[in-house]
Amino acid sequence: MLQDENSFEKLLAGETRAVARAITKVENGAKDASELMKAVYPHTGHALVIGITGAPGAGKSSLVDKLAFYYKDKGERIGIICVDPSSPFSGGAILGDRIRMSTLGLDKNVFIRSMATRGNLGGLSRATVDAVGILDAAGFDKVIVETVGVGQDEVEIVKTADVSVVVLVPGMGDDIQAIKAGIMEIGDVFVINKADREGVLRTEKELEALLSLAHRPDFWNPPIIKTIATENKGIEDLSKAIESYYDFQKNGENLERRTAIAKWRLLELLQERLLADVLSRNGTRERIEKMAQEIAEKKNNPYSAVEEILR
Amino acid sequence: MLQDENSFEKLLAGETRAVARAITKVENGAKDASELMKAVYPHTGHALVIGITGAPGAGKSSLVDKLAFYYKDKGERIGIICVDPSSPFSGGAILGDRIRMSTLGLDKNVFIRSMATRGNLGGLSRATVDAVGILDAAGFDKVIVETVGVGQDEVEIVKTADVSVVVLVPGMGDDIQAIKAGIMEIGDVFVINKADREGVLRTEKELEALLSLAHRPDFWNPPIIKTIATENKGIEDLSKAIESYYDFQKNGENLERRTAIAKWRLLELLQERLLADVLSRNGTRERIEKMAQEIAEKKNNPYSAVEEILR
Repeated sequence: MLQDENSFEKLLAGETRAVARAITKVENGAKDASELMKAVYPHTGHALVIGITGAPGAGKSSLVDKLAFYYKDKGERIGIICVDPSSPFSGGAILGDRIRMSTLGLDKNVFIRSMATRGNLGGLSRATVDAVGILDAAGFDKVIVETVGVGQDEVEIVKTADVSVVVLVPGMGDDIQAIKAGIMEIGDVFVINKADREGVLRTEKELEALLSLAHRPDFWNPPIIKTIATENKGIEDLSKAIESYYDFQKNGENLERRTAIAKWRLLELLQERLLADVLSRNGTRERIEKMAQEIAEKKNNPYSAVEEILR
Repeated sequence: MLQDENSFEKLLAGETRAVARAITKVENGAKDASELMKAVYPHTGHALVIGITGAPGAGKSSLVDKLAFYYKDKGERIGIICVDPSSPFSGGAILGDRIRMSTLGLDKNVFIRSMATRGNLGGLSRATVDAVGILDAAGFDKVIVETVGVGQDEVEIVKTADVSVVVLVPGMGDDIQAIKAGIMEIGDVFVINKADREGVLRTEKELEALLSLAHRPDFWNPPIIKTIATENKGIEDLSKAIESYYDFQKNGENLERRTAIAKWRLLELLQERLLADVLSRNGTRERIEKMAQEIAEKKNNPYSAVEEILR
C-alpha cells in the first residue's frame, strides 16, 4: 500500500490532486473510503468551517467568492464545498461552477468542489461532511460549505459547521413563507445581501423582530451584516462577525452541540452502511428492480415488498 | 380489532378525524403503520396528486389556498399536505398554518396537514408519500403537496406527484443561482406568481430560454402560467394547465416513471426499517449516545464506531 500511503502524505500536505481524489472516493462511497476517513480523522479540528445557506437568488455564490478572496488576500488557504442537489434527473450540468472555477479555482490556495446528489439515496450529507474533514486535514484554514438548496438535508449540513451564515435579500421578509423557510433558527450570523436594493431597512427590522423571538440556548445574539457582494462591500464586516461567533462558541460549552452532530453523523453513516450491506447480497438489486415494477403495476405494495426483502 | 376496522371504514369514508389519526400514525412511524398502509394501498390511485414547490417567498401558500378554493367551488374534496422542514431545533412553530387552518380548514371538504421534520432522520419523505396515499384512499379528489424548502428531499417528494408545479417570482431569473436551484427540471407546469411585479416579462423570457434547453424524455413542453394569487388571478389557467399535463401523461407511457418512484420509495422504506431494527436491539441507543460523546471528544471516529455497531 506504498502508493496509498504516499497519496495520503500528499493529502496531508494539501496537494490539490490528492485532495480531489480523496473527495471523489468519499463521494462515490468507494470501498476504502471508510479506511481513508479513519486515517483523516485524527488530523481534523483545525479549520474554521463556515456554513452558508439561504434562498436561491440571494447571491450566495458571489458572497462566498468574495469571502474566499478576502481570506486569500490575508494569506490563508480556503476550501469551498458547494452542495448542489440540483438536476435530479440529469446528474447536474453545473454551469455556474465552471465559471467560478475559472476565476477562483486556478489558485493553489483555493480549492472548489461541487457535490451533487448521486442517485436516489445519495448519502450527500455524509459525503459533504467527509469532504470537509478531508479539507481540514489537508491544512485549509477556512472551509466554506455553501448549500444551493434550502431543504432538510441542507439544514443538517449547515448545522455541522462551526459558524452558520444565513443569507437573505431585501423584500423577502414581507412574506410569511420567509418565516417558515426553516433557516431562521440555524443562523449564527445573518447577512442581508444586495443591500443597495429597496426595502433593506424593512427586512432588517423584520429580521430583528424574528430573532428577538428566538431562544438560543447559548444566549448568542446573531449579528445582521449588510453586504453588496458584487461590489465587494461588507465582506470584512462579515468575516469579523464570523470570527466573533467562532471565538464566542469556542469559549463556551459546545460539547453538547458537537455530540449532537456526532450522533447525527453516526446515524447517517449507520443507515447508509446497512442499506449497502443488504444491496450487496446476491440478487437483491435485481429483486428490488422487479418489485418496483410490480408496485408500479399495483401488483404489490412497498410495505409488503420491504418485509419480503427483510425476511 | 373491531375498533381498528371501524376506524379504517371511517378513513375510507373520508372522516376528518380518522384521516388525521392515520396520518399521525405514519408520521410517528407507529408499529401498526405498515399494516395500515398495506390496507390503504389497494384503495389508492384515484386522486390527482399535485406537487407544488418553489423558493421561499414565491407565494406558494397563497397559490395553494386559492387553488384549493377553486376546486372546492367545483364541488371537489381537497387534501393539502404542507411539507415543512423548518425549525429543526424547536420542532416547528407553524404560525402560518394556523392562519390557513382558520380560513380554509373549517370546511369538511378541505383537509390541511403540515408535516415537519422529526428528529435527525425523520423519514419525512416516506411519511409524506404515505399521507398522500391516505388522502387518496379517503376519497379526496385532489391532493396538493406543498413543500416549503427547496432541497434534495423536497425535490424527491414533488417528483412523486402526478403533476409538478414550480412557482417563481419576477426578478429571480436574473441570478445564475436560480438556474442551479434544482427545481427547473422537475416542473411539468411553471407559474410566475406576483405577476404584477416589475420584470415579469424578462423572467418569462429567461424561463422560456431555460426550458428550451431542457430535454424531456416525454417531449412535453411545460406551460408558463402567470398568476397573482393574492388577487385570485390566473388560478383557472393554472388548473387547466395541471389538467392538461395530467391528461397528457395519462395517455402516455408513464410506467417507467412510476417504477422509478416505486424504487425510490422501496429503498427509503428499507433504509428506515433497517435502522429501526438495529436501534431496537437492547442497549444500542445508549451505546450510540455514548459513542457520539466519544466522537465529540475526539476519542473515537464515526467510521470505527459504525463498524463496532455492525459487528
